[in-house]
Amino acid sequence: MKRITGSLVVVMTLVAGVAFTPITSRYSTAQQAAPIFVKKIPAGYRDWKVISVAHEAGDLNDIRAVLGNNIAIKAYRAGKLPFPEGAIVGRIAWSYVSSEENNKVFGRDQSFVAGAPTEFYLQFMVKDSKKYAATGGWGYSSFDKDGKPTDEAAMKTCFPCHQAVKDRDFVFTKYAP
Amino acid sequence: MKRITGSLVVVMTLVAGVAFTPITSRYSTAQQAAPIFVKKIPAGYRDWKVISVAHEAGDLNDIRAVLGNNIAIKAYRAGKLPFPEGAIVGRIAWSYVSSEENNKVFGRDQSFVAGAPTEFYLQFMVKDSKKYAATGGWGYSSFDKDGKPTDEAAMKTCFPCHQAVKDRDFVFTKYAP
Repeated sequence: MKRITGSLVVVMTLVAGVAFTPITSRYSTAQQAAPIFVKKIPAGYRDWKVISVAHEAGDLNDIRAVLGNNIAIKAYRAGKLPFPEGAIVGRIAWSYVSSEENNKVFGRDQSFVAGAPTEFYLQFMVKDSKKYAATGGWGYSSFDKDGKPTDEAAMKTCFPCHQAVKDRDFVFTKYAP
Repeated sequence: MKRITGSLVVVMTLVAGVAFTPITSRYSTAQQAAPIFVKKIPAGYRDWKVISVAHEAGDLNDIRAVLGNNIAIKAYRAGKLPFPEGAIVGRIAWSYVSSEENNKVFGRDQSFVAGAPTEFYLQFMVKDSKKYAATGGWGYSSFDKDGKPTDEAAMKTCFPCHQAVKDRDFVFTKYAP
């Protein structure tokens, strides 16, 4: 039961930013042949440009920035699909925190800001059509605040969810104007 | 009454990202001598790095990214106050929209994303200690989705609110890790 809850949280974690999916038996075979998970945090991600922002309520209870490397941003702005090789979409998730300081100024409880990093702090999807052919051309990754990758069992929930947006090259987040 | 509500909305709009304040008579005099409002959208702001993100509930009902130009980001990361000359802190506010698509994947209503630009779409505070000496060394600006500046009467609500965080050089938003 715990495992199911854990997986659900991972699935939910990813939809608004970078999402993941359960792998079918076909993909499990592919996984043995070639890794579908990225284990390294892309360099310089904190400097990337903003694709959009989101708030996930419920168990996740986070507020997030979805960022892209230059290849991803260029493709987003051109409205071109599929994303080119080397595109990376990432998201940073912080705890969703009510700001007492801001609310005091407003005179009402209305301000929510980014707090500490969450359990699934950083997530990325990396486009490499050959390497990650088994999962729609994207390799998925997820890290906690210490840079430790999320365990692979949970990571298998990534790709199936993303299949819901196959027509957008498996990417949920739309570019905010 | 309408005017009061309007001003309140402007005040609230700015606190979580870039905030503004009513000008006292002393500042009104200064305003006549030197403009305290910036009327031009800083070039390339959409490419700036992320300082943090926030959600303003209530009348504003927006979700926002707070960005900084390189001078501002460098100061934030170094934890240095006051901000150096030329620093610009900006924020983009989008409508706070429930994502039916994401909720369908989650199986529950929990996902909120960025929608269309809001009435106070873009706001910036520009550091120029001499030019904007009358308002703490920052010039304030606000624009709607068409790039039209917010009227000056409403803009006068900027600086007074920011005085609440004078010890952080009048900047509300903290850098998210």
